[in-house]
Amino acid sequence: MTLYVNLADLLGTRIENGFYRPGDRLPSVRALSLEHGVSLSTVQQAYRLLEDNGLALPKPKSGYFVPSGRTIPALPVVGRPAQRPVEISQWEQVLELIRSVPNANVIQLGRGMPDVSSPTLKPLLRALAKISRRQDMPGLYYDNIYGTQSLRDQVARLLLDSGCQLSANDLVITTGCHEALSTSIRAICEPGDIVAVDSPSFHGAMQTLKGLGMKALEIPTDPITGISLDALELALEQWPIKAIQLTPNCNNPLGYIMPEARKRALLSLAQRFDVAIIEDDVYGDLAYNYPRPRTIKSFDEDGRVLLCSSFSKTLAPGLRIGWVAPGRYLERVLHMKYISTGSTATQPQLAIAEFLESGHYEPHLRRMRGQYQRGRDQMTDWVMRYFPAGTRVSRPQGGFMLWVELAEDFDTLRLNRALLDQGVQIAVGSIFSASGKYRNCLRMNYAAKPTAQIEDAVRKVGSTITRLLAETEPAPH
Amino acid sequence: MTLYVNLADLLGTRIENGFYRPGDRLPSVRALSLEHGVSLSTVQQAYRLLEDNGLALPKPKSGYFVPSGRTIPALPVVGRPAQRPVEISQWEQVLELIRSVPNANVIQLGRGMPDVSSPTLKPLLRALAKISRRQDMPGLYYDNIYGTQSLRDQVARLLLDSGCQLSANDLVITTGCHEALSTSIRAICEPGDIVAVDSPSFHGAMQTLKGLGMKALEIPTDPITGISLDALELALEQWPIKAIQLTPNCNNPLGYIMPEARKRALLSLAQRFDVAIIEDDVYGDLAYNYPRPRTIKSFDEDGRVLLCSSFSKTLAPGLRIGWVAPGRYLERVLHMKYISTGSTATQPQLAIAEFLESGHYEPHLRRMRGQYQRGRDQMTDWVMRYFPAGTRVSRPQGGFMLWVELAEDFDTLRLNRALLDQGVQIAVGSIFSASGKYRNCLRMNYAAKPTAQIEDAVRKVGSTITRLLAETEPAPH
Repeated sequence: MTLYVNLADLLGTRIENGFYRPGDRLPSVRALSLEHGVSLSTVQQAYRLLEDNGLALPKPKSGYFVPSGRTIPALPVVGRPAQRPVEISQWEQVLELIRSVPNANVIQLGRGMPDVSSPTLKPLLRALAKISRRQDMPGLYYDNIYGTQSLRDQVARLLLDSGCQLSANDLVITTGCHEALSTSIRAICEPGDIVAVDSPSFHGAMQTLKGLGMKALEIPTDPITGISLDALELALEQWPIKAIQLTPNCNNPLGYIMPEARKRALLSLAQRFDVAIIEDDVYGDLAYNYPRPRTIKSFDEDGRVLLCSSFSKTLAPGLRIGWVAPGRYLERVLHMKYISTGSTATQPQLAIAEFLESGHYEPHLRRMRGQYQRGRDQMTDWVMRYFPAGTRVSRPQGGFMLWVELAEDFDTLRLNRALLDQGVQIAVGSIFSASGKYRNCLRMNYAAKPTAQIEDAVRKVGSTITRLLAETEPAPH
Repeated sequence: MTLYVNLADLLGTRIENGFYRPGDRLPSVRALSLEHGVSLSTVQQAYRLLEDNGLALPKPKSGYFVPSGRTIPALPVVGRPAQRPVEISQWEQVLELIRSVPNANVIQLGRGMPDVSSPTLKPLLRALAKISRRQDMPGLYYDNIYGTQSLRDQVARLLLDSGCQLSANDLVITTGCHEALSTSIRAICEPGDIVAVDSPSFHGAMQTLKGLGMKALEIPTDPITGISLDALELALEQWPIKAIQLTPNCNNPLGYIMPEARKRALLSLAQRFDVAIIEDDVYGDLAYNYPRPRTIKSFDEDGRVLLCSSFSKTLAPGLRIGWVAPGRYLERVLHMKYISTGSTATQPQLAIAEFLESGHYEPHLRRMRGQYQRGRDQMTDWVMRYFPAGTRVSRPQGGFMLWVELAEDFDTLRLNRALLDQGVQIAVGSIFSASGKYRNCLRMNYAAKPTAQIEDAVRKVGSTITRLLAETEPAPH
């Protein structure tokens, strides 16, 4: 991490947290140079980085300012409190989403696809090609059930950044985060068991609960601070909950990062009621501010947290490489992993290990974090411009997903059908609920660099919403 | 398929089936040329192929003979009849096997690893490397949940050889055959359900039943004709069986191919009792005789057979590419696939599709079938030479696994421990039983081309058995 990136991150955090307000003058280059003991040119580099990220605006002869004039849209409202565990529905709508294949004629804003066109991924492709050419063909052999040692070593090193002191032996490589989640759930729960989830919640994890015959208890979730601890405590008192499944960092779909104190409090609750925590950290490395946020796992002392993640969002989903740090459930997760897919594909593991070892991961992340943060601002602006007034929008602190809430009786299923022949698709909100809530919400992907084509797609979504709203206006009576 | 290979296969089948006996003179080149309407040189090529496969022996000036002097060892005995469904144990011993990594100092005769050193695999490695270099980087994107269209097209074409008329839309690509089996089982069964299995049976499928909380009912299985239909019928009458799980072609571990009439009869039984059949065909393409045997699926008219397979044994296990043809359970299998790993890795799918499209699969198979058949004969000879008298040995008709049965009270767990510091490992028989039967059996891999090193390993296994037998001889009393 170079000095100027460090400094830019520090200033960026202060701006994001409101320490400097829109329109404020930022500290002078000279002042920062003195304060931080760095050269003038380091400060200038830091400011240029902030400028690139849309966080600082240079005014000739007067220095840098926090960009003003950006109106911040209202946040989504917090869902209703948990009532009872439910069987999970919505499989058909999830299937509709995952059936889709990349198609040049459709702007697919619905899927959780990162931008894989960055030149910082080239060393990864070279590593993949190189392994294919090796005479000893390591990619063709069965790996052992834990996963390749070199990759587990590298992942253990990565995990230090989120506060986890784990060794390669604490990790199991999986076929994507999907397998990490499903083996974790199966390691803990039996059919009929109740799992508490944040709400809205990642549809993949919920479909896993459904497929395994478990029930979900949806806990209201704040779009800035995450799962409600009060509601969770109440639920733990009322129901025989087996596990809590949530995404505290760069939440999917809401984008928040749960504050550290609340992570600790959540862990205490889990200890008090003796339940396991399944922590999905798949977007954690894409937090916009540096250093990246800590995981709940990093505070875990009795092995009750199963940390699940993957390279699908940070590198590329097609590689299907994830991992799980299952704590005290290691043996059971290994069994579930073995019966799910046997060992994980060898070649992508070796290629990713080489990519990490050679130091290509951090520069790639830095670039993507900046791009996604700018993408968030651009997408938010477009939504404000093209969607009806009163639209509520999340304020993601990482990742590349925007959650949009429309008028209460709006139906995004109808919206998606209406968009089909316009070549745009979004993710309907109801798949993020076990019980079909959030029908008036949608999730949009802003991973790709903004283009006129994407702007046009967002405009189409907005105008179709407006048209549908006009059609459904109640007839006077 | 060239003429001479066809002819060699025909003659080979006759020899294997005992139409020509050891020591018999085979038809003259001229006679075969007239009988089959092919040139003399075609017949000579066919005989050279048979010679390579150890099925014909040239004698100067007298023509070709069936090699004599090969004593055929006694077959393993058929297991005891089914008694009751049991919870599956043996996970610790399976874990011991799959924990192992390729290690130059250990001859691993236990695992289901094919020979991946054949030059006929080179086009596959080239395809993998080529895809890594493509500018549009298709390997980095999520695939759709069914799997890549081009690969499904090719697999549908392959399945014609086993008598299946299926389209790409009837197939779901999976992360190895493991995932095909586990999604199939989960699509049909609930925890507590009973599944009838052949016995001995593939440990991976049984551990899947165990992990999902199902019970296995082991059905006695003949080492030549497969699962006992009488015993199965009795079991179906007595127990509420949900599915029959078996490997009828090139069975693992016994190596038999179930005769076609018995496959039909099994399907009728399944129809009569309305149960599903989970058919593992992962070794089916490695049957030594051409054309390859039909699957039970090929006779299925009401979609009750779920055909599971992969390229792990025919190409390479490290790629983790399999498939399932789930019949009427398609929708449910899709859901189970989604929650297990999401979509399957894209790059190996594209590479295999290209390998198949370019016609590299059949020549590769032909080469491997010949090599494995010679490997079987060599390994059988070694076992006969180095193991104690009275050792019983399977007679595989495909694949690369030999099943060896020792004296009734012998314990192969002790054997494997004793072999550890001699740098040899075998698969203990008890993992092929739900209830820990077959402790006196072991499975050995003969995929690799015979070498002095492997012969030495087999000799060590044999002498260790002899030593242990001497140690455990009952004291006189």
